[in-house]
Amino acid sequence: MPQLRLALAQVNSTVGDLAGNAAIVLDRCRAAAAAGAEVVALPEMVLTGYPVEDLALRESFAVASRRALDALPAQLVEAGLGELLVVVGYLDLDDAGPRNAAALIQRGQVVDRYFKHHLPNYGVFDEFRYFSPGSVLPVVRMHGLDIGVVICEDIWQDGGPVAAYGELGLDLLLCLNGSPYERAKDDTRGALVARKAREAGAPMAYVNLVGGQDELVFDGDSMVVDEHGTLLARAPQFVEHLLVLDLDLPGGRARAGTVAGFEVHHHELTAVAPAKPTLAPPANYDPLPDEAEVWWALRTGLGDYVRKNGFRSVVLGLSGGIDSAVVAAIAVDALGADAVYGVSMPSKYSSEHSRGDAADMAERTGLHYSTQAIGEMVEAFVGQLGLTGLAEENVQARCRGVTLMALSNSDGHLVLATGNKTELAVGYSTIYGDAVGGFAPIKDVPKTLVWRLARWRNEQAEKDGQIAPIPPNSIEKPPSAELRPGQLDSDSLPDYVLLDAVLDDYVESDRGFDDLVEAGFEAETIEDIVRLVDRAEYKRRQYPPGTKITVKGFGRDRRLPITNTWREKRP
Amino acid sequence: MPQLRLALAQVNSTVGDLAGNAAIVLDRCRAAAAAGAEVVALPEMVLTGYPVEDLALRESFAVASRRALDALPAQLVEAGLGELLVVVGYLDLDDAGPRNAAALIQRGQVVDRYFKHHLPNYGVFDEFRYFSPGSVLPVVRMHGLDIGVVICEDIWQDGGPVAAYGELGLDLLLCLNGSPYERAKDDTRGALVARKAREAGAPMAYVNLVGGQDELVFDGDSMVVDEHGTLLARAPQFVEHLLVLDLDLPGGRARAGTVAGFEVHHHELTAVAPAKPTLAPPANYDPLPDEAEVWWALRTGLGDYVRKNGFRSVVLGLSGGIDSAVVAAIAVDALGADAVYGVSMPSKYSSEHSRGDAADMAERTGLHYSTQAIGEMVEAFVGQLGLTGLAEENVQARCRGVTLMALSNSDGHLVLATGNKTELAVGYSTIYGDAVGGFAPIKDVPKTLVWRLARWRNEQAEKDGQIAPIPPNSIEKPPSAELRPGQLDSDSLPDYVLLDAVLDDYVESDRGFDDLVEAGFEAETIEDIVRLVDRAEYKRRQYPPGTKITVKGFGRDRRLPITNTWREKRP
Repeated sequence: MPQLRLALAQVNSTVGDLAGNAAIVLDRCRAAAAAGAEVVALPEMVLTGYPVEDLALRESFAVASRRALDALPAQLVEAGLGELLVVVGYLDLDDAGPRNAAALIQRGQVVDRYFKHHLPNYGVFDEFRYFSPGSVLPVVRMHGLDIGVVICEDIWQDGGPVAAYGELGLDLLLCLNGSPYERAKDDTRGALVARKAREAGAPMAYVNLVGGQDELVFDGDSMVVDEHGTLLARAPQFVEHLLVLDLDLPGGRARAGTVAGFEVHHHELTAVAPAKPTLAPPANYDPLPDEAEVWWALRTGLGDYVRKNGFRSVVLGLSGGIDSAVVAAIAVDALGADAVYGVSMPSKYSSEHSRGDAADMAERTGLHYSTQAIGEMVEAFVGQLGLTGLAEENVQARCRGVTLMALSNSDGHLVLATGNKTELAVGYSTIYGDAVGGFAPIKDVPKTLVWRLARWRNEQAEKDGQIAPIPPNSIEKPPSAELRPGQLDSDSLPDYVLLDAVLDDYVESDRGFDDLVEAGFEAETIEDIVRLVDRAEYKRRQYPPGTKITVKGFGRDRRLPITNTWREKRP
Repeated sequence: MPQLRLALAQVNSTVGDLAGNAAIVLDRCRAAAAAGAEVVALPEMVLTGYPVEDLALRESFAVASRRALDALPAQLVEAGLGELLVVVGYLDLDDAGPRNAAALIQRGQVVDRYFKHHLPNYGVFDEFRYFSPGSVLPVVRMHGLDIGVVICEDIWQDGGPVAAYGELGLDLLLCLNGSPYERAKDDTRGALVARKAREAGAPMAYVNLVGGQDELVFDGDSMVVDEHGTLLARAPQFVEHLLVLDLDLPGGRARAGTVAGFEVHHHELTAVAPAKPTLAPPANYDPLPDEAEVWWALRTGLGDYVRKNGFRSVVLGLSGGIDSAVVAAIAVDALGADAVYGVSMPSKYSSEHSRGDAADMAERTGLHYSTQAIGEMVEAFVGQLGLTGLAEENVQARCRGVTLMALSNSDGHLVLATGNKTELAVGYSTIYGDAVGGFAPIKDVPKTLVWRLARWRNEQAEKDGQIAPIPPNSIEKPPSAELRPGQLDSDSLPDYVLLDAVLDDYVESDRGFDDLVEAGFEAETIEDIVRLVDRAEYKRRQYPPGTKITVKGFGRDRRLPITNTWREKRP
């Protein structure tokens, strides 16, 4: 039985950085060859980064991507890697338009190209806007083994190329992915890969990107399953990884000819088998538990936004509350304490414990800490404009926003907004106040999960014998915006457990009034919450980007008009 | 030859307001019947408003739309309008998913439904995300005439239902539209309707929405052409209008049977012909010249955003410069001077002429005018935080932003941001400063067009014997942000004529470096401008919505990643 050594390169590429991404590809090919691999697969559109959005429609960019791809075969030969079969995702452009493509490269040639057949056009995806679907199935026979390739959505939809390959017969199906993280998606994905391997009647090697790109974060979770769907190896989430393993494959399973709806290209490759150094048993990492996974998603999303956009430090307001404490802890984990600047900005309504808790946070983590009281700034507005009530409350938040932006302008920090998904949903934030920032790390984290994450992070620290980063008092005390004397969130909002339950059904599941009643919520509660959510749409439009972790974030996932008089309510 | 009296109801519906929109439909049917019409056509998705975006995916909303539609036949009979053939756009939902639909209603029945066949999925449109395409062609024979219906994009793409109707033969093709305004689109549209009427071999009646919906504005421009493409009647742009005309039609031109790819439904209707009052010759309005058309688009977009979102007044900073003057003039035209509040917010760098020009603007238009010097507010920040340079400049803009938001909180005004497209393109604005606002009326107007509009508006006033609203000094003086002594825009930016020319090619036409060089621009100029545009993406994401007037606005038209290292530059 021919034996194949396969490498999956789970890497972090950067959108638009063709030269940098090509260097990553070459470097991983070198490492794969050094490990004795005969085939290496890299993720979907790794050469351009993913998703490139409207850059796919810019001809100069598509042509540059194609050129970078066409330069790879010679570069591989020059690096002594000509015998390796390299399967790599990139952006192509032909007469039918832009293509989400994979190239199969060996011995200085692009042997063939595969164009993604099923294009996702829901949630955050708009691929019908960009790509023409392909209908060619390449099959390369190398070392007596028949290998095919598909791309991401091709395994999420029924029929199409996976079924066609199944009809044709294959020894190994490679699947290149740019599959963004969502909570619990790893479970779905594992089951899906297993099912699709069975449909293809062949082992499937699934390779995914890692790293953050604006609101998306890719978690890796690359894996190989056999033709029965049994897991053979699984890479860790959220870190770069080269997964190398030996596969025992029957060989020569593809029949000649075509299958309905597709054109099949058969290629017979000659390759000198490499020296194969002894290989450790393949890695097999379990997916992370929920809180750990979310935490890694958030630190990866923030860290990559900062680094890929050329920032070196972040600044945020530390109120002593739970949200800013969690954001600060994520930032410290992502960037190191020395890159994190926390500013306490007390007003006359700030409690003693708030200032104490903010200082405690700084002490626990070692982040840079300073205090800027906002009293005189606020008084300049309140006095001159004669403000009271909501206008006076908001001016406090806005003076803090102006202060953070001034520190950003002076020192080059990226400002972090600390709002959570629950606040963003109901509009419980001050636009141009606490909503200022270049990035909002927890904008897709419901308030109840913010607390869970805080407790989990502290427990992890304690397990590791480290100082828990988040002040217990910030976790335990009742939440307050502290914009007027004795104010508590519970004065204006329902209990957060109830609120998050309704929001989960209304925002993420898009349920209407009748369904919400059926789910057990009271009519008045539903109407109150729905009204808050609908009326805050204008604020969300101007909110900074932040990492998506749920099935439906406030961003490209949920596209609602601002001008909209429809309300879910009693008939 | 049978004679048909046709009415096209060009109306302004509101997204989500099913009851209000249904009332508009009934009211227009009443008016059409009173004018002796036998057929009335209303625009695409008039019953839900358009576009509804992700509301199309909310089952409760789709079901409510379907119910509102299903209630119409009985309401029409009750109103004594049962003999009228009513063709009306709405959102339907069936087993295949949501549908962009038209219903044909007569004698208390929904006779048939047409589902949009060609779905636009480019520019601002995402209709593959929402709708399943239809493949049924209804043909109703009434008064011996064969009438068919298509929806909007069906005439913008080749083949499909128009060609199929052409093969079948028809006496009249109705086209329901939600076709947003863009500069010069009326010329394209007129030629297209003529060409498609020839393709259908039948007169075409084109009915479009009017009014603003978030960033889109619909200009109406409803029209009827004969089977040779000759214009018979054209409605005015940007206002509601009932276009009624008599058509001399041959009758009975549809053949029985089907055409390739479509299922044809033939319906024979009985109808009592109405009394036909004497009809004036049909209206025939020429499309407006460029500046007038843009001005009407901007005043309609702003006016409808304000009214449909329940605001009664707007507030804006009046700097004495051209941008705020033009925005103020648009607001006064859209809402009346009594609903417009202008605030002069001088700093120590504000020139005498700036304050004078702002006051002059107020005097010319009668808007509410007040002054809030920002010196003490700025000093509170600059003194406490020790700001200099850019940080000090930005704090001035941000103190103005906080002031406007405070006045909004106190008095309920909608804040208008006054930035133009050129500024937004190159990031020449202060985020959370002059960029604050709920709506940004001229965000899609290049700076050079802002000047042209100002001159045009003043000339119109003079022609009408009214006071020119915009101070000539605001038009003539060199533009300056006045954030430091003697500052001029030309210190930091290329000449606006050159800048707008490059932006037109780079932003609107999405040209790459080589094409820009070929267009005659210098390499260094291109690189400088492209870098500014690309680096300002994060600011644009947080900018308020504003009326789209160009082929590619900064909004859903242009979707680029923030994290993106690709630059158009010398190889």
